[in-house]
Amino acid sequence: MPKRLNTRDPQFDAAFAQFLGEKRESSADVGAAVASIIDDVRTRGDAALIDLSKKYDHVDLEALGLRVSAEEMRRAREACSAETLEALEFATARIAEHHQRQLPTNERYTDERGAELGWRWTAVESVGLYVPGGLASYPSSVLMNVIPAKVAGVPRIVMVVPAPRGEINPLVLAAAEMAGIEEVYRVGGAQAVAALAYGTETIAPVAKIVGPGNAYVAAAKRQVFGAVGIDSIAGPSEVLVIADRHNNPEWIAADLLAQAEHDTAAQSILMTDDAEFGRAVEAAVLRQLQTLPRGNIAGESWNVFGAIIELQSLDEAPALADRIAAEHLEIATQDAEALGERIRNAGALFLGAYTPEMIGDYVAGPNHVLPTSRTARFSSGLGVLDFMKRTSILKLDRNALAELAPAAMALARAEGLEAHRSSAEIRLQSEQQPMPERASS
Amino acid sequence: MPKRLNTRDPQFDAAFAQFLGEKRESSADVGAAVASIIDDVRTRGDAALIDLSKKYDHVDLEALGLRVSAEEMRRAREACSAETLEALEFATARIAEHHQRQLPTNERYTDERGAELGWRWTAVESVGLYVPGGLASYPSSVLMNVIPAKVAGVPRIVMVVPAPRGEINPLVLAAAEMAGIEEVYRVGGAQAVAALAYGTETIAPVAKIVGPGNAYVAAAKRQVFGAVGIDSIAGPSEVLVIADRHNNPEWIAADLLAQAEHDTAAQSILMTDDAEFGRAVEAAVLRQLQTLPRGNIAGESWNVFGAIIELQSLDEAPALADRIAAEHLEIATQDAEALGERIRNAGALFLGAYTPEMIGDYVAGPNHVLPTSRTARFSSGLGVLDFMKRTSILKLDRNALAELAPAAMALARAEGLEAHRSSAEIRLQSEQQPMPERASS
Repeated sequence: MPKRLNTRDPQFDAAFAQFLGEKRESSADVGAAVASIIDDVRTRGDAALIDLSKKYDHVDLEALGLRVSAEEMRRAREACSAETLEALEFATARIAEHHQRQLPTNERYTDERGAELGWRWTAVESVGLYVPGGLASYPSSVLMNVIPAKVAGVPRIVMVVPAPRGEINPLVLAAAEMAGIEEVYRVGGAQAVAALAYGTETIAPVAKIVGPGNAYVAAAKRQVFGAVGIDSIAGPSEVLVIADRHNNPEWIAADLLAQAEHDTAAQSILMTDDAEFGRAVEAAVLRQLQTLPRGNIAGESWNVFGAIIELQSLDEAPALADRIAAEHLEIATQDAEALGERIRNAGALFLGAYTPEMIGDYVAGPNHVLPTSRTARFSSGLGVLDFMKRTSILKLDRNALAELAPAAMALARAEGLEAHRSSAEIRLQSEQQPMPERASS
Repeated sequence: MPKRLNTRDPQFDAAFAQFLGEKRESSADVGAAVASIIDDVRTRGDAALIDLSKKYDHVDLEALGLRVSAEEMRRAREACSAETLEALEFATARIAEHHQRQLPTNERYTDERGAELGWRWTAVESVGLYVPGGLASYPSSVLMNVIPAKVAGVPRIVMVVPAPRGEINPLVLAAAEMAGIEEVYRVGGAQAVAALAYGTETIAPVAKIVGPGNAYVAAAKRQVFGAVGIDSIAGPSEVLVIADRHNNPEWIAADLLAQAEHDTAAQSILMTDDAEFGRAVEAAVLRQLQTLPRGNIAGESWNVFGAIIELQSLDEAPALADRIAAEHLEIATQDAEALGERIRNAGALFLGAYTPEMIGDYVAGPNHVLPTSRTARFSSGLGVLDFMKRTSILKLDRNALAELAPAAMALARAEGLEAHRSSAEIRLQSEQQPMPERASS
C-alpha cells in the first residue's frame, strides 16, 4: 500500500517531513574494499585489471584483450534489430540537436576604465564514461552521457563497460558507435574507475569520469574525485505527478508504474486535489501491475515508497513540490504551465496530459541524467556545461592598471598582504616599459 | 631554493611528472571528529553550537547571542577606515557588474514535430556562506562568494563566521552588509556547517553551502554533501607565470611572491624561454623577500614549492601549462593573447605585463574563487551558475506524442521496460481526451 498523506490532517507537517527524510537506499560501506582495488590498479596497472576482471566478471581479458575492437563494434551493430537501430538514430539526432542549444558563448569586453575582461569556455580534454553491465546496461544512457560531451567538443571520450563472462550488451556498443565513441574497454567496477583516473599501460587517464554504477563504482568515483572530475552520484529514480481530476486515471497510473519498474528503491508520488481521483489511480495501478513483466519490482517500489498526497487545493502544490524537489515532475492539470512556473525545484518538467515522462527518457532531447533524492534543490541535469569549463580573462594596460590599482592596493593592505600590494605598485612606480631589449637580442 | 626544470634535460619528462604529482597539503584526517560534531548538532541543535563554540572558540554564545545584530553590523562598518570602505564599494560594484553578464537565459522552442522543448534557470532557494575566522578572514572572499549568489537571485543568503574570544573582523561584517547579507551567525567550524545543512532552533537549513575553511570545515562539507550542495573544496593557491625576457624581473618576482605570501603550501611557478631572465627573477625574489612582512611564509613557499621551468621555446609552453592547469595563469610575453589561446586549462588568465594577478583578487570583476590543484582541467571558477539550476521542460500534444512515441517505445522494449512503453501507448490508444468532466464538477 502506498503512503497516504492529506494536507487537511493536523499531523500533515510532521508526516510530510518524515516522508521527505526517508532513506530509499542503504549504501553498502565498500570504501575499504574499493580503496584496495584502486591501490592495486595504480600499482600493477593492466595486470590488476586482468586479475580483478577474472575474479569479479569471470572473464579472461588476457585472452580477449582489454580493448573492444572496431570489428566487435561492427558485429554488435549487426546483432541489433533495424527497428532498434532506427530508434537509436532518431534519439541521437534529437538529443544532439537539443544539447547544441546549450553551447555557451565566450565573452570579451572593455569596460569604461579601459580594462579588458571576459571569459572563454573550453571543453574538458578527456572524459571516461562508465556503463554498467548486465540488466542495467542501457543504450539510452550511453547516448545521454556521450552526446553532451561530443557537443561540448571533448576531443577524447572513452567508454568502459564490464563484460561478465565475456558478454557486452550489443545495444550498448551500437549506441556507443553511433554516438561516435571509438575507444571502448571491457572492464568494470572500481577497477575501471581507477584505470580511468590514474591510467594503466593500455588505458590513458582521463580528466573527468561520468556515468552510473553500483555501490563499488560510486565509492570509487568518490575516492578518485579531485584527481579527476566526476558527475553527481545518482540515487534511485523518482517521479512526482501532480494531477487534477481532468485526467484519465489509467494514464497517470501508467506513469507511476513506469517510474516504479526501474528499481525497488524508485519512488512514485501522486499529488492531487481530488480524493476520488486518487483512489481511481490507485485502483488502476493495482490493475496494471497484474500484467506488468517487471510487476514484482514495480509493486514493491509502489508499496514501500509510493505515496498519494491529497491537497485541499492545487495552490498547496508548489511549496510541497519544492520540498520534494523531484527528479521528474509531471504536471497534468488544467493550467499546467502556470502551475509549473510556480515551482522552483525539479530536475525536469513534463507539462500536460500528453507528456508522459518516458518520452524524456529516450527521445525528447533533454538529458535523462537528472538530480535525484531532492538534489534538484541545488543541481541540474547533465548537460554540455558539465563537459566544459570557463577561464576568466583579464588584460590591462598601464592606464587601466592605474585606474584599478588604488582600490586593490587598499584592500591588500587591509588584508595584510603586502606582496599583493607591491605587485601592483612596482608597475606603477616604473617609468619605463617592462624591460628594454638586451643588446644580445 | 626553488625547483629548476629544463625541457632540454633528458630526464625532464620524469622530473615534470614528479613535480605535478607533489602533494602540497597533508589533509589531517578529522573525519571521525567531524562526524561526531555533526551528530551532536543534529541532536541538540543550538545547545550543541553553544557548547562547541565555548570549547573551540572560547566564546559564550549564550550571553552574546548566536545571531549578529544589525547594530553590530553598523558598528563594524564604523570601525573600518573610509579608504577601505570605498575600496570595498569599488570592488562590489565591479564584481556585480561582471557577474551580471553570466546570467543565463531560458530557452523555449517548438521543434519541427510539434514538441515544445526548453529549459528554465532558477536560483537556489537558500545559500550558506562559511567565512573563516582569524587571519584568513578576508572581506574580499565575502564579496566573491556573496555577489554571484545575489546576482543569481538567491532569496536567502546566510553567513556564518566564528568569533574566537568574541571577535569578528569588522571588515568581514562590513563586506557582508555591503553585499546585502542580513543574516549572520557567529559560529564556525564543523558545527556551523552542520547547522547550515540540518538546521537548529535558530538557524534554518540552507540548500547549498559555499566558502573556504580549515580541515574540519572541509571534512564537514564533504560529509553533509548530498543533504545540501557544496562548492568545490579549495586546495592551496597557485600561480603559473609564463614570461619571456621582455619583462622586468622585479615585476615578475613580485607576482611570484604575491602568490607565495598566501600560505606556505602556495605555489609559484615561472616558465621562461630565457635562462638568464629566470636567474634575474630568482635574484629579485630573494631581494624582495628580505623586506616582505610575510617573508617567512613566502620564503618557505618559494623554497619548498616554487619552480622555474626553462623552455627551449615558448612553443613548449601550452602543453606543459595544460598539464599544470594552474589556478592563476599570467602570460607576459610578446604575444600573450595568441599564446593564451593555445592553452586549454587554467582557472583565470592574466594577459600582458601590466596585469598582475592581484588585481583579479580584489577589483577586476571576475571571481577569485578558482579551481586549484590541477582541477582547472575539469572545473571553473565560482560564478552565477553555481547558484542556479536548470530544469528541462517538455510539453507535447497528442500529435507530437504520436510523432515521438514509436522510437521511444522501441527503445523501452529493447531495454525491457514495458511500463515505460505502456505509458505512451495507453495515451495513443485512447480515442478521447483525458477524462470527461464528472457530473459533480
